[in-house]
Amino acid sequence: MVSGPSGVGKSSIIDRLARRRRFRFSVSVTTRSPRPGERDGVDYVFSDRETFMSLVAEDALLEWAEFGGNLYGTPRRPVEEWLAAGDDVLLDIEIDGARQIRDTFPTALFLFIAPPGLEELRRRLQGRGDTSEGDIRLRLERARRDLASAPEVFDVLVVNRDLERAVDLVDAVIGCDGRVVDSR
Amino acid sequence: MVSGPSGVGKSSIIDRLARRRRFRFSVSVTTRSPRPGERDGVDYVFSDRETFMSLVAEDALLEWAEFGGNLYGTPRRPVEEWLAAGDDVLLDIEIDGARQIRDTFPTALFLFIAPPGLEELRRRLQGRGDTSEGDIRLRLERARRDLASAPEVFDVLVVNRDLERAVDLVDAVIGCDGRVVDSR
Repeated sequence: MVSGPSGVGKSSIIDRLARRRRFRFSVSVTTRSPRPGERDGVDYVFSDRETFMSLVAEDALLEWAEFGGNLYGTPRRPVEEWLAAGDDVLLDIEIDGARQIRDTFPTALFLFIAPPGLEELRRRLQGRGDTSEGDIRLRLERARRDLASAPEVFDVLVVNRDLERAVDLVDAVIGCDGRVVDSR
Repeated sequence: MVSGPSGVGKSSIIDRLARRRRFRFSVSVTTRSPRPGERDGVDYVFSDRETFMSLVAEDALLEWAEFGGNLYGTPRRPVEEWLAAGDDVLLDIEIDGARQIRDTFPTALFLFIAPPGLEELRRRLQGRGDTSEGDIRLRLERARRDLASAPEVFDVLVVNRDLERAVDLVDAVIGCDGRVVDSR
């Protein structure tokens, strides 16, 4: 389970990790609108709110959470099938979602990607150029809160000061020779 | 470099790690009084303030910091000799000391042991039975501060929720097959 604040470089780390390791990557369902270039069923499964809430009602989501006014969730069935087949599975989830599934997956590794500091995170968010100043403030405040409570939910926090270095550390902590460290 | 707040279980983790890996463990110099059972030259090198400050003046300490009214430092020479001989070296240092030597040892792994929460840390400190209520408050306040700034100084934070689990994670992050993850 990988989590971390918006702008921390989580997607880049996961992309690099995918070049080194084989794992199944869960595609989240979301009610937010697709950004340019995002493909339905690949980056996200895009859904309206009513459909999303019917998935919740059917218990078809492993976890779900609201973030920035949109809903995000993890479809249950593919994850359960992959695990049953013995595959490694990586979920990219919010801290609230991680809290919900800690008990469901007691042997999973819960990993939080942290920025070296909130000022550095602000620079990265501003550098992306697609986020308003008000939105950056909201994300920073949320990052501050998530960082403070991360040790309650996660096993390890890896600081993304340098991308290659962070990938090395995530790779190491997942375990040697494809062996995922067992958290029981 | 291993750091972490008072009461987090850092010494227990280091002891367990020493059963799995070979490394040199630096003995710190301190001006605090020995506790019952502590041996000079083994647990600490006990020193008066004047001697300590002369070590500082001679640049004989790699790093030093004040904590709880006492001075703590790492003798430079043994560490440099071990590293020159190709040995792995573990230093148990305060966050202020870690800040001082980040640039001196750019390839070292900087590891912070975090409690699952400050309430849990309070329980552990109270459980030790050797710390006054006022002292516990001071240590908790310092832990809160250190935790908030840890990502500025450290590469990885390992949460000590369960001792064996934390040792597994520290062992994994140090690297496979005795290979210390290189942070360049």
